[in-house]
Amino acid sequence: MIYNYPDDSLMVHTDLYQINMLKTYWEKGIDQKKAVFEVYFRKNPFNNGYAVFAGLERVIHYLNNFRFSNSDLEYLRSLHLYPESFLKYLASLKLELSVRAMREGELCYAAEPLMQVEGPLGQCQLVETAILNIINFQTLIATKASRIRSVVGEGDKISEFGARRAQEMDAAIWGTRAAYIGGFDSTSNVRAGKLFGIPVSGTHAHSLVQAYRDEYKAFKAYAETHQDVVFLVDTYDTLRSGMPIAIQVAKEMGDKINFIGVRIDSGDMSYQSKKIREQLDEAGFTQARIIASNDLDEKTILNLRMQGAKINDWGIGTKIITSYDQPALGAVYKLVGIEDEHGEIAPTIKISSNTEKITTPGVKQVWRITRKKDGKVEGDYVALIDERPDQLDELFMFHPVHTYINKTVKNFEARPLLEDIFKEGKQVYDLPNILEIKAYLDDRINCLWEEYKRILNPHLYPVDLSQALYDLKMNSIQEVREQVDLIAETFKSDIDY
Amino acid sequence: MIYNYPDDSLMVHTDLYQINMLKTYWEKGIDQKKAVFEVYFRKNPFNNGYAVFAGLERVIHYLNNFRFSNSDLEYLRSLHLYPESFLKYLASLKLELSVRAMREGELCYAAEPLMQVEGPLGQCQLVETAILNIINFQTLIATKASRIRSVVGEGDKISEFGARRAQEMDAAIWGTRAAYIGGFDSTSNVRAGKLFGIPVSGTHAHSLVQAYRDEYKAFKAYAETHQDVVFLVDTYDTLRSGMPIAIQVAKEMGDKINFIGVRIDSGDMSYQSKKIREQLDEAGFTQARIIASNDLDEKTILNLRMQGAKINDWGIGTKIITSYDQPALGAVYKLVGIEDEHGEIAPTIKISSNTEKITTPGVKQVWRITRKKDGKVEGDYVALIDERPDQLDELFMFHPVHTYINKTVKNFEARPLLEDIFKEGKQVYDLPNILEIKAYLDDRINCLWEEYKRILNPHLYPVDLSQALYDLKMNSIQEVREQVDLIAETFKSDIDY
Repeated sequence: MIYNYPDDSLMVHTDLYQINMLKTYWEKGIDQKKAVFEVYFRKNPFNNGYAVFAGLERVIHYLNNFRFSNSDLEYLRSLHLYPESFLKYLASLKLELSVRAMREGELCYAAEPLMQVEGPLGQCQLVETAILNIINFQTLIATKASRIRSVVGEGDKISEFGARRAQEMDAAIWGTRAAYIGGFDSTSNVRAGKLFGIPVSGTHAHSLVQAYRDEYKAFKAYAETHQDVVFLVDTYDTLRSGMPIAIQVAKEMGDKINFIGVRIDSGDMSYQSKKIREQLDEAGFTQARIIASNDLDEKTILNLRMQGAKINDWGIGTKIITSYDQPALGAVYKLVGIEDEHGEIAPTIKISSNTEKITTPGVKQVWRITRKKDGKVEGDYVALIDERPDQLDELFMFHPVHTYINKTVKNFEARPLLEDIFKEGKQVYDLPNILEIKAYLDDRINCLWEEYKRILNPHLYPVDLSQALYDLKMNSIQEVREQVDLIAETFKSDIDY
Repeated sequence: MIYNYPDDSLMVHTDLYQINMLKTYWEKGIDQKKAVFEVYFRKNPFNNGYAVFAGLERVIHYLNNFRFSNSDLEYLRSLHLYPESFLKYLASLKLELSVRAMREGELCYAAEPLMQVEGPLGQCQLVETAILNIINFQTLIATKASRIRSVVGEGDKISEFGARRAQEMDAAIWGTRAAYIGGFDSTSNVRAGKLFGIPVSGTHAHSLVQAYRDEYKAFKAYAETHQDVVFLVDTYDTLRSGMPIAIQVAKEMGDKINFIGVRIDSGDMSYQSKKIREQLDEAGFTQARIIASNDLDEKTILNLRMQGAKINDWGIGTKIITSYDQPALGAVYKLVGIEDEHGEIAPTIKISSNTEKITTPGVKQVWRITRKKDGKVEGDYVALIDERPDQLDELFMFHPVHTYINKTVKNFEARPLLEDIFKEGKQVYDLPNILEIKAYLDDRINCLWEEYKRILNPHLYPVDLSQALYDLKMNSIQEVREQVDLIAETFKSDIDY
């Protein structure tokens, strides 16, 4: 098949315009100009109170393999768009980028940089597509997972069941990783277990019962061939057939198995779980757990729990692995600084009549401001890279649009969130393992006020600009407007709007 | 990194319960029992009048690589769930399955089998997850693409721009393939172009303008380094700056470039496109095209066209590549027949209080019924595999639930849609190339009545069951109910609902 390249590479996992721009930069001799791009999203996903940054490990792996393969170059040659000299230049490229990013598991918010890519303009451009692809997806899923975690009970287990509904195979595995980071306990996906060391779980499907065409025989066969046993009880009739038979088999097997409980995958989960609880308790299986699956998400779980549904554990598939109610995060990668004629990084801006599409110019650091006394957050403070809010005694924080919303913070700690990941092409960051990432997220969530954690209409978390950054943005907008007015005058292109 | 296995394989791209069920079947000696599973979805995606079947090529590739790798077995061993003898059995597995499926590009509908997998029960079970994962995604995206194609103008070009918003990398490439099948003309995704031979397109981003901090210099530089030129005109102010400068540069370059047109990515697309058209026409560029992108989908396109927007070509990203308004198809894989004690395939059913979760038992063929005189469709007729509606003079077709909706069809042709793909592990199907698949879909859509093509509330396409299949389903439900009543009586498990 045509798509079986032995040297398949992710270097061409990019948009054609990146390569076309690189060609312009190279032919015009500015491909080595130093540039800084930043990754950010414009709105918190799900209107959640926060997002969970994830995907960095995959980005690091991608960048460490930055090199066009022979078949990549062969393909580009076949397009008849590029001269040999340019292909030779592409073949010679080695990663020279510096990257700063938040840690995986960090809480992050709209309109602040999650990642910064600095280096030769041409290289910065090439990696945009893949970086966004990776960060957008994992951050989205980790955030969704964290929302789901927040509505289940203390000891409830949540398992990811979504492989069959994922948007192709990479989504199934990387989405599982992100879900695990965000708060899931296990997955049904064996490959994700193998690749990332995530605990795997699963017992049987309706097909087992159908294959035996008899619930008793099917449950018995399963119980005789496994140690840990969960029976799926809704193949024919949950309460009248599946449950009594499950109990019968569990009693017959006694100590020979670890009867974990039963799973239901259809019907009214609230009513059924209460009846099942009664049946299990009556039979003496008071420790047996009730596991529910069937298009669940944080909203259905919240409703079921409000009704007192007796569900212990949750199997979540489609809604987590596709992030069903918002399947894309929409993070962007924007040029914020470019080397000027003096070799300095000059801030650069993009203007738009869609106000949320206006960029914030300048190279930045994000500072998380917390109270010294209890570690609770005051908000995020986005400043120019050379500002040091951590050395101030008090910090004036104001809303970046409604500036009358402001406060002066004292006795605070300021922690910079963007850390060095690559320096001039060399990885300088040690990857934490996935359990460390999970634990890190837990700690961060503990520092949040409850009001930011509500899944519907949470309190708005402050993401403020420093005065210097705010002034730079306003001045840049003004500058561009004056430039545009001049152009409009020259071309007499003023129009009636 | 832990996930870098040189022998990474898709055999473990499955749910753990598949392997656990296989263990039961194997220990109980029924893993070789002949079984038949069918893939179908329960509701047309987007409530569209049809869906477009896609993903078969990827399934074939997956099945041709059916074999556990060493690291797969190593991982399964590490779970301490399986004895060595079982792992040895897994290692010995070779594909013995027979597969029937629709062709890619075929129109398909809810509640009819798209694919049938027949063979040893254990093997059928193992491949469920990956098959669903593949078919669900590509069928969804191809259908979405077909909807978008249906609302653009005759000569309009649609390009896929979604890589950065895709749900990870596989989704970006396989989604692009499906979008191309469904009616897109090109993609920005270089790797998808390389892997599948899809035409690639793209010129420049806002960053090019920002890098020069001057639209004139940026456009000029791009035009001097490329043959085909599209200027992105909305970095600062589309109508007052971007457009006059684009026109100026196009005039200066004259015949030295192929000035294709301009792209806008923000602002009001209707108003702007009309003004841009005026500006281009006034400058003599009457052939220059206007390309729009910015979270477009079939609904926004329909609205823009209704308002007379002067847009020629469409760049579609997030909304196609994630199928934003419905990010999962929800196709399932259900056991419909299992070998009985006489070696015959006996039909099997799953009952549910959610009526749409009741399966239709028995091994089936889907027949497309068309009128002899003009090839227009009458509907689909789902029959048992040994029925031959093509040999009948008249066909009684009735709604599978509201049976009073019925008709008798004469002078018809009946074409079976499920074709042999694998026979006992051997591929027996020659893959069409992607252009043939596109052309096949075009032909199929031409045979549809207009009323099925409306993107909102289309007329309902008949998917009827043969009398024999209908009777089998009703009898099977009755049989299970009687069996359940008996069990309920035995266990005194009747309850108050």
